[in-house]
Amino acid sequence: MKPVIFGAFEINQVNLTSQGLWAHPDQTTYRYKELDYWTSMAKTLERGGFHFVFLADSYGYPHIKGLTKPVVFEQAVEIPNNDPMLVIPPMAAVTERLCFAVTASTTYEHPYANARRLATLDHLTGGRFGWNVVTTSMSVVSELFGKELIPHDERYARAEDFMALTYKLLEGSWDDDAVLVDKERRVYADPAKVREIHHHGPYHRSDGYFDCEPSPQRTPVLFQAGLSEAGRSFGAAHAEVVFLQGRDTDLVRRQVDDIRARAVKAGRSEGAVKTVTTLSIVCARSRAEAERKLDEYLAYVNYPASAAYYSAMTGIDLEALEELDPDATFSSIQTEETRSSVARHGDEKLREAADHILRYGMRELIVMGPPAEIAERLAEYVEATGVDGFLLAPFTVPASYDEFADEIAPALRDAGMLAEQPTGTFRESLFPDGGPRLPESHPAHAARASGAGVV
Amino acid sequence: MKPVIFGAFEINQVNLTSQGLWAHPDQTTYRYKELDYWTSMAKTLERGGFHFVFLADSYGYPHIKGLTKPVVFEQAVEIPNNDPMLVIPPMAAVTERLCFAVTASTTYEHPYANARRLATLDHLTGGRFGWNVVTTSMSVVSELFGKELIPHDERYARAEDFMALTYKLLEGSWDDDAVLVDKERRVYADPAKVREIHHHGPYHRSDGYFDCEPSPQRTPVLFQAGLSEAGRSFGAAHAEVVFLQGRDTDLVRRQVDDIRARAVKAGRSEGAVKTVTTLSIVCARSRAEAERKLDEYLAYVNYPASAAYYSAMTGIDLEALEELDPDATFSSIQTEETRSSVARHGDEKLREAADHILRYGMRELIVMGPPAEIAERLAEYVEATGVDGFLLAPFTVPASYDEFADEIAPALRDAGMLAEQPTGTFRESLFPDGGPRLPESHPAHAARASGAGVV
Repeated sequence: MKPVIFGAFEINQVNLTSQGLWAHPDQTTYRYKELDYWTSMAKTLERGGFHFVFLADSYGYPHIKGLTKPVVFEQAVEIPNNDPMLVIPPMAAVTERLCFAVTASTTYEHPYANARRLATLDHLTGGRFGWNVVTTSMSVVSELFGKELIPHDERYARAEDFMALTYKLLEGSWDDDAVLVDKERRVYADPAKVREIHHHGPYHRSDGYFDCEPSPQRTPVLFQAGLSEAGRSFGAAHAEVVFLQGRDTDLVRRQVDDIRARAVKAGRSEGAVKTVTTLSIVCARSRAEAERKLDEYLAYVNYPASAAYYSAMTGIDLEALEELDPDATFSSIQTEETRSSVARHGDEKLREAADHILRYGMRELIVMGPPAEIAERLAEYVEATGVDGFLLAPFTVPASYDEFADEIAPALRDAGMLAEQPTGTFRESLFPDGGPRLPESHPAHAARASGAGVV
Repeated sequence: MKPVIFGAFEINQVNLTSQGLWAHPDQTTYRYKELDYWTSMAKTLERGGFHFVFLADSYGYPHIKGLTKPVVFEQAVEIPNNDPMLVIPPMAAVTERLCFAVTASTTYEHPYANARRLATLDHLTGGRFGWNVVTTSMSVVSELFGKELIPHDERYARAEDFMALTYKLLEGSWDDDAVLVDKERRVYADPAKVREIHHHGPYHRSDGYFDCEPSPQRTPVLFQAGLSEAGRSFGAAHAEVVFLQGRDTDLVRRQVDDIRARAVKAGRSEGAVKTVTTLSIVCARSRAEAERKLDEYLAYVNYPASAAYYSAMTGIDLEALEELDPDATFSSIQTEETRSSVARHGDEKLREAADHILRYGMRELIVMGPPAEIAERLAEYVEATGVDGFLLAPFTVPASYDEFADEIAPALRDAGMLAEQPTGTFRESLFPDGGPRLPESHPAHAARASGAGVV
């Protein structure tokens, strides 16, 4: 078995997918406000053989039909949430190989300010950095930001324009050899090798030099998760790592194949986009013991909190399920906001899927048993779906990570499934045949050659 | 002599005020992109008895009459520059008492996103955090951000609205006792103690809950530096620490008195606003040796780079000086962009001031000699001006900070001028008679009581 990717799925708040699990006795996520919560986690992840940690994020919280229910605050459903970028530098300071990916929205961040933050993080981490590009669907965020809600497809059009400007800034303003730091001659940078970019796009405009000198990767490794038609096209064009979620191996296989085919159609190589799926692990000496352990976790999942969370994420009001036709499928309820869920679940029956979603606290793939069996199950899943790796969603922090480090990682190594941790940039570790920069077949490349052009 | 405040003046770029000094053999600022440059500095500052480190910032670079001169890149005049917020968490992670202040613009950041960053930093630092509020005058930034340039006084009107919204978010959405983290009862927060804010101001609009739970100080310690009429009024209303710069003790005394009088007029106490002035120290066994040492630093200051920097900061084109009447004063050239300089220099003759500005690399107060003499000079300056403290602008990093720690701090302690480093929040350390939150006389207080109100 060839090595697969293992990332840790994290968030700068107290619940990760399973709303209510913050209250588990082993859970320390309530310490998310403290620096040493993050630095300790980083050290554990590096010790555990993780390739990277991924920080999900969104402004806002569940706000359905004009209402945020009390359970949202009681169970801390997406609120409170802190800025995730700010915990990356201290985590990078205590690790040498662990990579980082963080979510930032093309709808709510300003492209110039965002690009400066990305470049700064790529510099500070020595190129161990990725950006999860999201367009932000939740309408509550538009109210918090005092802006009009942008329809789904227009969000992606804006995102395209945002990326075009971002590439010009990160790739097109400074030549690779512009910075000299020549103290003898007293020349910091060669003015002939720095140029203004001019971007006059449909949504964004910028004229001038980019503030930051070239960072190790320039554009960070690009992550993406959208499953709608517009989301898949965007991912196939730009993303280097795409998230999927699913128990149904056939459905995941089709999604993996679809993304690869779209990447090729977009002029990229089949291997240019890695796919990862979220994974929950329950490790125990026997399957029966693992089931008891899982039940103990799930006893903390709060049903109304999960329903509120699911509704906020997908636009599907699970609490209204009882009113639905028992045979209703995801496809039958497609609306502007539900597209991603429909793409994920297709013709699954809503009530059945909802039972699973709420019972398991939104976790899709859950693998249980002794470590060697877990490795075997994961190998089968990779074989069946073609995914390149997993994002481990912990039940409790730091216990789930310690368990991975102490129990799972050795079994994965025995099975040849856990790669050596990277030593170079994040991009080189994912694509060992390339360099630290995006390849020529990526749309960012055009910005490099024509940095001075007006679009 | 009562203790005075000592902060370190820093920037996430290679030159600090003295353009060209990056090339000095002792200078390590070219390592600004590396995490351990910042963590090492933080440890040195804590060891050296500094109260806080202040990070200046602006997007953009000198761009005068449509042109960015080659010298700007050759001498790295404000470009490259990285995001300064991102270096604070790693510095906080390796220190216990050092406080932090960072610059963020009310014209170019979004108030909701900015408030989440501020709250996150106040959480992560345990309340050791301050925000330097700037409105950003450089027109090049509006071109980089694709926005219309906002005239000076309107920038301050926008800043007022920005602050009003910021206070509602940071102070008005969550009650002090809203967060319970009660695992037994499985209640994270009490929904009755969290409320939506509604802000419909002339420039900014936001409706909903603030994403972050209350941080130790809620609103960070507020810094401000504007010297124009609008800037002084803004500072007197909002700021807790105001920066001044000046060699002329009478002028600085008038500014200190003016700020105090304005604060009182704004309903605050005379001591509610601390004043600090930038300071350069040249330490040596004798005055003559110190002068040689200063000359050696100044030999690295690049005249055209300094002129470009000064023009960008102030709107005054020093390179056109030769064309001016030799008797021209700052007052005689007042324009929209030059107001702060005119306020600082009044009827000083332009040519004479320019000679000083360019020769000394924009450093105003420079104190030289053996440590005990330096302490004496500083005591005299405090006596003459009434300032509450200093911001040390290093010549070289880390040498200037090591010198402060090893030579100056002991002399200041002998003179009773260096306070014990704080153990609580930044605000409590500056205002020991109050708590970690802004006092009732501050405009933020109104947001606390009327968080739910619509403005």
